[in-house]
Amino acid sequence: MPSKVTIETVARHANVSRQTVSNVLNAPDMVRDETRARVVAAIEELGYRTNNAARQMRTGRSNLIGVRIDPVRNGIEASVLDRFLHGLTEAATPAGYRVVLYTAADDDSEVNTYDDLLAAYAVDAFILTHTHYDDSRTSWLREHHVPFTTFGRSWSAPEEHSWIDVDGAAGTAAATRHLVAAGHRRIGFIGWPEGSAVGDDRRRGWSEAMHHAGLGTDGLARFTPDGVDQGATEARSLNGATAVVCASDPLAFGAWRARSSGADRLAVIGFDDTPVAQALGLSSIRQPLAQVAAACIETVSMLLNDTRHDGDGEPARRQVLLEPELIVRDSG
Amino acid sequence: MPSKVTIETVARHANVSRQTVSNVLNAPDMVRDETRARVVAAIEELGYRTNNAARQMRTGRSNLIGVRIDPVRNGIEASVLDRFLHGLTEAATPAGYRVVLYTAADDDSEVNTYDDLLAAYAVDAFILTHTHYDDSRTSWLREHHVPFTTFGRSWSAPEEHSWIDVDGAAGTAAATRHLVAAGHRRIGFIGWPEGSAVGDDRRRGWSEAMHHAGLGTDGLARFTPDGVDQGATEARSLNGATAVVCASDPLAFGAWRARSSGADRLAVIGFDDTPVAQALGLSSIRQPLAQVAAACIETVSMLLNDTRHDGDGEPARRQVLLEPELIVRDSG
Repeated sequence: MPSKVTIETVARHANVSRQTVSNVLNAPDMVRDETRARVVAAIEELGYRTNNAARQMRTGRSNLIGVRIDPVRNGIEASVLDRFLHGLTEAATPAGYRVVLYTAADDDSEVNTYDDLLAAYAVDAFILTHTHYDDSRTSWLREHHVPFTTFGRSWSAPEEHSWIDVDGAAGTAAATRHLVAAGHRRIGFIGWPEGSAVGDDRRRGWSEAMHHAGLGTDGLARFTPDGVDQGATEARSLNGATAVVCASDPLAFGAWRARSSGADRLAVIGFDDTPVAQALGLSSIRQPLAQVAAACIETVSMLLNDTRHDGDGEPARRQVLLEPELIVRDSG
Repeated sequence: MPSKVTIETVARHANVSRQTVSNVLNAPDMVRDETRARVVAAIEELGYRTNNAARQMRTGRSNLIGVRIDPVRNGIEASVLDRFLHGLTEAATPAGYRVVLYTAADDDSEVNTYDDLLAAYAVDAFILTHTHYDDSRTSWLREHHVPFTTFGRSWSAPEEHSWIDVDGAAGTAAATRHLVAAGHRRIGFIGWPEGSAVGDDRRRGWSEAMHHAGLGTDGLARFTPDGVDQGATEARSLNGATAVVCASDPLAFGAWRARSSGADRLAVIGFDDTPVAQALGLSSIRQPLAQVAAACIETVSMLLNDTRHDGDGEPARRQVLLEPELIVRDSG
């Protein structure tokens, strides 16, 4: 391949030293007008791509934002974070940033990756997903004064850093109210074992809405690892329930497949409005992923433009909680 | 936020001019040993992140590879390119590259984006998807001597540039042979209207396998825009057929929903092994996306390290055609 135009090429073309080219880029006042004009002409003629490298040398800014892409899951939920990633890419460009991807097997390897991306690519900021209780990634970024925001609350200390999240409890509460309005009284919940911050929040929405409606929840909650078969098993065990709110679409799909017809029919509402839910006519709760992504980019821009605390002060913070939307289809 | 350490900060700390710091980074021979040692010490002490910016200034290389992320489709097929994107990210890191994302509404806006990514981010190479007949994007990249490879053949001129692709015709042929071995004689095909290179290829695999088996194809092919409802409509029109090979999972899902039971039952095989096919027990043809991604990164590395044609010569080229895998489930 023809190699890219470098400082060397420009210098040869303009018949000046490499140093002079570098001066034109970084300290133009040091260069005589006539020489500067010749170098600028050579840069333009050769199409030397200086902008980012030169800007980065001057400002320390790369205009790159690091975002993790999750390990391949062949499952039903895979599309959720992919839609979020697309939203980030769409929102980043007009704001003057680009998204650079990384993968990580766990929190520790993610922290090592931050270090590499900061050292080798001068990434300006990170957008994290999958926040959880006592998240070591956010502690590391705060200690190292690296701007970041998260899709997902700072569960252990809500005010600790900037985040954007979707109100999962509001989603399951809306689903529960919808089922109550349709005449259901014994409405179950199938979710994940306690300790998953997101799962605990989704369960809370269901139980609070049941209590508000004057309905009991005794014996109506089931907890299981995520999965279609797990959803089916738990749905079969919910004797007497006529409807169920699920913490995910795979659980909902299993519940629906186990009890979709006859006297045993269970109304089912899932979470995340995945392609599978759309294809099968499953009711589900949709997260406004494009809005979440836009708010993440806005927040990162704000952090990067905040020069008030240009030293040891605490950085600005911004927390945004968005409402999900209940999509009603055949199943509920 | 505390601002990043810049050349300015390093200069102040080492008590030298900005220019001297720049010299240490770009032309260390020009700097006296003692001064150089002081600047290097300041760089280390302050943790100045020079690698990429400095390397980019020296070499014109950013180690960034541009990859498009597709517009959000809520449909069934969305997961295919997302899995490819994850594979690219996984393969890029050990090879010394990172993936930077962009979006584009059409070929013209994609070409404009190349220009921006080259100018502002000095992206080293591109990996393109969705190749088609007379692709203006690949012409532009070739004219501008930008290294690239494509997931998808160069359909108009197969030798024109490097590409990695999956043998779609081999996939539909394997599906057809599987149905023949199961005793089917009237096997239909539901695909896209002629002129889509990928679709034409998938149809060819079916018709060639039918002819090899001594079976006719008259009246057994249907062409329609992609979609679940379209698949159902075409399946109903395939009177007398007992099986069908489809160019996509949405078409297959529609066909399966329309004729999944009774005397009218149609054996159905889709394409792409999406989460919906997995959830519903649809047989489908799976593309080896992680392998495609790894081959794309390998190819781009080869192009970027090929200095033999460091001028006007034609760049090296590499074409790789991988086999898909038939996944047999309940539907076929």
